[in-house]
Amino acid sequence: MSDERCLARGAVDRIGDTESKCTVSIGDWSDERTMSVPDHGVAVEACLAQLTDPEHGVLKDASEVAAIGFKAVHGGRMSGVFRVNAEVLDAMAEMNAAAPAHNPPYIAAMKAMQQRFADLPLVAAFETNFHQTIPAARKEYAIPRDWADEFHIRKWGFHGASHRYIATRSAELLGRDDARVISCHLGGSSSITAIRNRQSVMTTMGMTPQTGLPQNNRVGDFDPFALPLILQRTGMTLDEVLAHLASQGGLLGLSGRSGDIRDVEEAAADGDAGSQLALDVYVEEIRRHLGGMIVALGGVDAIVFTAGIGENDDLIRGRVCDGLEELGIVVDTAANQSLKGEATFHADDSRTALWVIPTNEEIIVARQTVSVLQQA
Amino acid sequence: MSDERCLARGAVDRIGDTESKCTVSIGDWSDERTMSVPDHGVAVEACLAQLTDPEHGVLKDASEVAAIGFKAVHGGRMSGVFRVNAEVLDAMAEMNAAAPAHNPPYIAAMKAMQQRFADLPLVAAFETNFHQTIPAARKEYAIPRDWADEFHIRKWGFHGASHRYIATRSAELLGRDDARVISCHLGGSSSITAIRNRQSVMTTMGMTPQTGLPQNNRVGDFDPFALPLILQRTGMTLDEVLAHLASQGGLLGLSGRSGDIRDVEEAAADGDAGSQLALDVYVEEIRRHLGGMIVALGGVDAIVFTAGIGENDDLIRGRVCDGLEELGIVVDTAANQSLKGEATFHADDSRTALWVIPTNEEIIVARQTVSVLQQA
Repeated sequence: MSDERCLARGAVDRIGDTESKCTVSIGDWSDERTMSVPDHGVAVEACLAQLTDPEHGVLKDASEVAAIGFKAVHGGRMSGVFRVNAEVLDAMAEMNAAAPAHNPPYIAAMKAMQQRFADLPLVAAFETNFHQTIPAARKEYAIPRDWADEFHIRKWGFHGASHRYIATRSAELLGRDDARVISCHLGGSSSITAIRNRQSVMTTMGMTPQTGLPQNNRVGDFDPFALPLILQRTGMTLDEVLAHLASQGGLLGLSGRSGDIRDVEEAAADGDAGSQLALDVYVEEIRRHLGGMIVALGGVDAIVFTAGIGENDDLIRGRVCDGLEELGIVVDTAANQSLKGEATFHADDSRTALWVIPTNEEIIVARQTVSVLQQA
Repeated sequence: MSDERCLARGAVDRIGDTESKCTVSIGDWSDERTMSVPDHGVAVEACLAQLTDPEHGVLKDASEVAAIGFKAVHGGRMSGVFRVNAEVLDAMAEMNAAAPAHNPPYIAAMKAMQQRFADLPLVAAFETNFHQTIPAARKEYAIPRDWADEFHIRKWGFHGASHRYIATRSAELLGRDDARVISCHLGGSSSITAIRNRQSVMTTMGMTPQTGLPQNNRVGDFDPFALPLILQRTGMTLDEVLAHLASQGGLLGLSGRSGDIRDVEEAAADGDAGSQLALDVYVEEIRRHLGGMIVALGGVDAIVFTAGIGENDDLIRGRVCDGLEELGIVVDTAANQSLKGEATFHADDSRTALWVIPTNEEIIVARQTVSVLQQA
């Protein structure tokens, strides 16, 4: 992997709007263009135009692109890394009901790109893939076996690219492959994964990316047997109630203000009770799942924080680790508040190492894409 | 409480069947009668007949009964100890959709007894009552606030009488009121509660008694966003799917054989893979929730096992506590296997005490009933 180089980074926002922003940065050069981007095929055209910019571009022409890799979300029975074909698209479509916000746009994007770039291999690296090593005892729901097997209802887990990166990078930093690591991916969407021998052995998200920790605007763990009462009292349908829980829940629902933790923290500091509750629930849910993983691992060698909140929010990191001295987890408060980039923040007498490691999901998807191309 | 005496114990099975068994034991005398018991009013008549038996009875006549206490399940907004009146019955009826197996029969029984014994006070001691001390951060779901407040959707918790008994009794046994105790009520229905200063601070059951740990035939924690897929694939309604999960899930669903852990353990010992999976999932779910509570408490002074499985199943107790030496939890295997009644089973070097304490829900309900009578 020593010859890996990131040539360029970029993004296209608000695909489908009349005013999309296409950004790219190549070395010191960066470019931002606002244009109409009706679909993902057009978005890729726009990216390629920037990447082949005569003056600053890194590619002579589009034919230099070997493949496009997708951080695909839910393939149900297909939970590996695959060239996108009809079977992959079918498997994703079967999971539309479980991941309504994620799967349909991915399928549409893949189809648009297949049409526009017939010769360019597309690769789906499913987010569930890293969690295939979770033992059945932590993967199966206590539901009738025929529902589990026929409908593929189990705890698939997500954020696989990010947790895989943390597994790899933490092993390098700790200088050992057999460490017990808890990877806390905390951001707009959050999940925690327990890692042993660089493999996932437990994770917080379940059959769908709506469960586990509270998210920015998604509910997280919730009691399905409360649903009949909500249907009865609101007159809404099941789909409407679930859509509401997946868009008006989480930090947004608790605070009544915002799903962005920066807004929530600011309002809480100003004394807003709902925002304080949102922070408190978020922290307590992280701690609850963290504890479950400490027991599953029989102890923990390192806890790693990553993603938007994990990397940048010392308040949340500090609260998550607070009062756990008896378990061998001791924070260096000054280090926690001042750290930048990849760094530790545990006290000298902490048995557990505390790390911030910026995640890099793109490198994982790129590596997985290369591995599929090499198999072919 | 030193003048508390248990005068008699008894039960009426299969109310509504043509052949119900009415059992009573008073000192050395015990009696079993098979008769038709169409409703709970008739059941109480049958109990009173046994309690006032001219030769063995402990009561001269029925007027000596001061009150009847109910271990009532879900009162939603009413979560204390109350004389049964129209308001209490209304509050229970509001929660019928959340506790369909529990609330309707309790309401029917209370109404039948009100009619039959107009002068006898009935007292509802709600199972949610002990959990009122849980802080909001561990009680609120990440749902819109109006749904939480208007529909009373929060983590109410259940098995309150049993966990309250363990809180009281463990404080006596440990000789201190400020201990951090985790009460594992494991039986046909199971829940775990974290206790500090004799108060509940966290529990596994949520809005309804269907969530938390897998139960004998109820699913426990499950992803509500998997429901649309099940509806789509089975053609069942939401109510049908939930009823299936609440009667064909849990140990029964996982094993495909039985909801009785003794049957499941026997089949697993004979090599049945489904039964082994059922045991593994049950143990892992207990450990997951236990870990969350150890973090919430910042460490644990005593773990207590109670109820049918907790008191009698050393295999489950041993597996729950296995491999936690690094956390200061060390089992004395011989003691675990041979203990009887109220006893410890931790090794000398265990920082956490491990106890079996037989629960006594009846004494809690009796005490709460007396306290309501004294208020009046």
